[in-house]
Amino acid sequence: MPELKLNERAQAMVRQLVADRESLGIEVTNLPEGSLLVDAGINCPGSLEAGRLLAEICLGGLGRVELVQLFFTDFWLPGVQVTVQQPALACIASQYAGWALKGEGFFALGSGPARALAAKEEVFQALGYQENSPVGVLVLETRKVPPAAVVEKVVAACGLGPENLSLLVAPTASLAGSVQVAARVVETGLHKLMELGYDLGKITAAFGTCPLAPLAAEDLAAMGRTNDGVLYGGRCFYTVTDPEEEIVEILPRVPSLASRDYGTPFLKLLEQYGDFYKIDPLLFSPAEVVINNTATGKVHRAGRVAPDLLKESLLGVAKD
Amino acid sequence: MPELKLNERAQAMVRQLVADRESLGIEVTNLPEGSLLVDAGINCPGSLEAGRLLAEICLGGLGRVELVQLFFTDFWLPGVQVTVQQPALACIASQYAGWALKGEGFFALGSGPARALAAKEEVFQALGYQENSPVGVLVLETRKVPPAAVVEKVVAACGLGPENLSLLVAPTASLAGSVQVAARVVETGLHKLMELGYDLGKITAAFGTCPLAPLAAEDLAAMGRTNDGVLYGGRCFYTVTDPEEEIVEILPRVPSLASRDYGTPFLKLLEQYGDFYKIDPLLFSPAEVVINNTATGKVHRAGRVAPDLLKESLLGVAKD
Amino acid sequence: MPELKLNERAQAMVRQLVADRESLGIEVTNLPEGSLLVDAGINCPGSLEAGRLLAEICLGGLGRVELVQLFFTDFWLPGVQVTVQQPALACIASQYAGWALKGEGFFALGSGPARALAAKEEVFQALGYQENSPVGVLVLETRKVPPAAVVEKVVAACGLGPENLSLLVAPTASLAGSVQVAARVVETGLHKLMELGYDLGKITAAFGTCPLAPLAAEDLAAMGRTNDGVLYGGRCFYTVTDPEEEIVEILPRVPSLASRDYGTPFLKLLEQYGDFYKIDPLLFSPAEVVINNTATGKVHRAGRVAPDLLKESLLGVAKD
Repeated sequence: MPELKLNERAQAMVRQLVADRESLGIEVTNLPEGSLLVDAGINCPGSLEAGRLLAEICLGGLGRVELVQLFFTDFWLPGVQVTVQQPALACIASQYAGWALKGEGFFALGSGPARALAAKEEVFQALGYQENSPVGVLVLETRKVPPAAVVEKVVAACGLGPENLSLLVAPTASLAGSVQVAARVVETGLHKLMELGYDLGKITAAFGTCPLAPLAAEDLAAMGRTNDGVLYGGRCFYTVTDPEEEIVEILPRVPSLASRDYGTPFLKLLEQYGDFYKIDPLLFSPAEVVINNTATGKVHRAGRVAPDLLKESLLGVAKD
Repeated sequence: MPELKLNERAQAMVRQLVADRESLGIEVTNLPEGSLLVDAGINCPGSLEAGRLLAEICLGGLGRVELVQLFFTDFWLPGVQVTVQQPALACIASQYAGWALKGEGFFALGSGPARALAAKEEVFQALGYQENSPVGVLVLETRKVPPAAVVEKVVAACGLGPENLSLLVAPTASLAGSVQVAARVVETGLHKLMELGYDLGKITAAFGTCPLAPLAAEDLAAMGRTNDGVLYGGRCFYTVTDPEEEIVEILPRVPSLASRDYGTPFLKLLEQYGDFYKIDPLLFSPAEVVINNTATGKVHRAGRVAPDLLKESLLGVAKD
Repeated sequence: MPELKLNERAQAMVRQLVADRESLGIEVTNLPEGSLLVDAGINCPGSLEAGRLLAEICLGGLGRVELVQLFFTDFWLPGVQVTVQQPALACIASQYAGWALKGEGFFALGSGPARALAAKEEVFQALGYQENSPVGVLVLETRKVPPAAVVEKVVAACGLGPENLSLLVAPTASLAGSVQVAARVVETGLHKLMELGYDLGKITAAFGTCPLAPLAAEDLAAMGRTNDGVLYGGRCFYTVTDPEEEIVEILPRVPSLASRDYGTPFLKLLEQYGDFYKIDPLLFSPAEVVINNTATGKVHRAGRVAPDLLKESLLGVAKD
């Protein structure tokens, strides 16, 4: 795979965020360790546009994230549309929230291209991708500023001086957080395919939409809604080149519908199981997945959006 | 509120208009007073793209205006989608057409960030916003070039030399005029909320769509259509933080449906009343308004689009 | 008509393609003759974004091409939305694939602004447009690299040194090819209007959408699908100024529905007739055409999208 300088691409967009920080409603400071901290929603309101930029940064600059209006049976929501180049690199080497960062009572999942500098997660072996870069950009879904121990861990793993790391943070229950999670819709489908053993290198194009979860009053509820937005409202289109039987075999297993836990809002599942890790990991996938196989020209579909579940979870409309 | 240099942001976009004037179908000249005049539709055809840029300039560079395709029951129209940062500043301190400019037989309502330099309108006291800037940008919905008396009034009120003022003009019945009025959909809802006594500082995000009124043969008919586009086809989504009872109380009063004059095309209302100022001022609001309250996570909706009224007014389809 | 430097506008976008070639999945080389060759899908995967840029280059930089999600009865597809300034120049003087290039066993139709340098096609007389430029940009829908004889023919006809010509190539059955053909939806309607004798100078604005044909396994099948995407899924909106009777007379003849060959997928037509040139040339038009006449303010519609034909051709769903 070509080295695409995902961190440098992302860093150029971070400069844009910084230059426009006041109008975007975000705050930019330097951490005591010297790293740049872009707060897109902890101590500031942030904005949908800040979230949109954050999402494009998460993709290492390899895709477009655009706000759209999405209509379901009898309601609509703002949503995002994501179009991705180099799907495996954009979504898995960069956007996937695969780096668990802990320390001094802090916990958050890190996403963004700095992961490809550390490249310690298993997914990088599968992808065969690693990056060297003078700068690194990491995005954290959190309501806390990362403590020194965490920053030090990141810069050490990335081989960066702390002054060359940019950390971008946004809570789940924030405008920017809501956008950047919805923008993972294409990544969620790719990750599920990877979990099912599919070689992502066969995927040449990816496109998807996902409703924005209206902001919840606190982060746990927001986590429920943003997940349900993908599971019950996400739609993806992938272009692959593969023997037909491979697609026919794997596709029905891809959308959220294929999981034993399909149909219950995420937050209720969490209550029922009492433990995130007891939820079926194969639940996490878009509602509807379409695959165009260029080897045959065929188009296959599986799953479907579930407007009633979206209404129950995202809009708080009680079930009949 | 932070000073966001709305005029300087807008001026940068005016330079883009000027550089691309031939392809955009607009004309750029200097008025005898020395101010720059950008004609986006009086003596030239203009274009949808010129209207889109004009609309983003009107927002002081604090939002995105994008052309979209909007579907209603059995027809579709091109439309605009507006996403706004700093909603009160973008829409009320800048985009709102609140400056009545008269003189030498000329009358037009001025919008755009130069209003925040003069800051004489009541809304600026409510917002607590005023701007100082070496440049000013004002947009006028008119079919006449503003006369010297009006230009002098503007530069005096803004504290600018005339050479530092850019005046952008487009008639209602023009491509650019049609886009920039439709792009007021989010502002119309905010202004209605303000009229109802709501503190716009509580609104952190705003998003909306509105069909473009097809061009009418003359400006009065175009005024009817462009208004009806918002009243019967506009949809807005606002994010606020507020006690729940405030939202529950005010929301049903926000959409156009809440007005005694709802349901009659604007031009017929004007004929019936014989006077613009006899029309219910609370009519002017989007058809559908959704509010997400981050204090509770709840989502509330009021109003609905009225496809039959859109067909009657915008498409000229006779009622059954 | 003003000279709009379509080639220089396009060349600036070619530089963007070249700078971002690795992430766009395209290959850039120099032909032996010295011209730049941008391969967007012959020996490389290309990408949807490469196709989007290719389409904007084809328009001579006079329009926006955006990916959108298009919904039909019970399915959706990624699609493109095209908004055009200076419709006759953007679409006919530049985007129309009107230059048949043959030599050394090679055949392809050339599109893009370099056509306006040669200006030998009949359409340029009708438009009264010709361009002089130090650079030229030509787009070819082909799976072969153009041979020396063809490159020499192009540069001679354009009056360019070979080093000042950029050739952009993409096969029909490629990501970029699929996007750039769908993006011809607005052009297809304009060309049909021209064939019917309509003066395109009366058209001041143009907007349209078209589904992307999922990639076929080979180029002939892809030609079928991409044509059907326009014929059965394309929707256009034109703004004109004209006596009403002109519009009323011509509009019903514009959409694909008006052709004797409407209703049969393109590939089947080709089999039935055994010769492309026996297919009704008036078939090639969008499914639905809306005209807004600014002389009267009226809006007229003709044709309609045909979801069942889209399913049969683009999705390979057998007819009941």
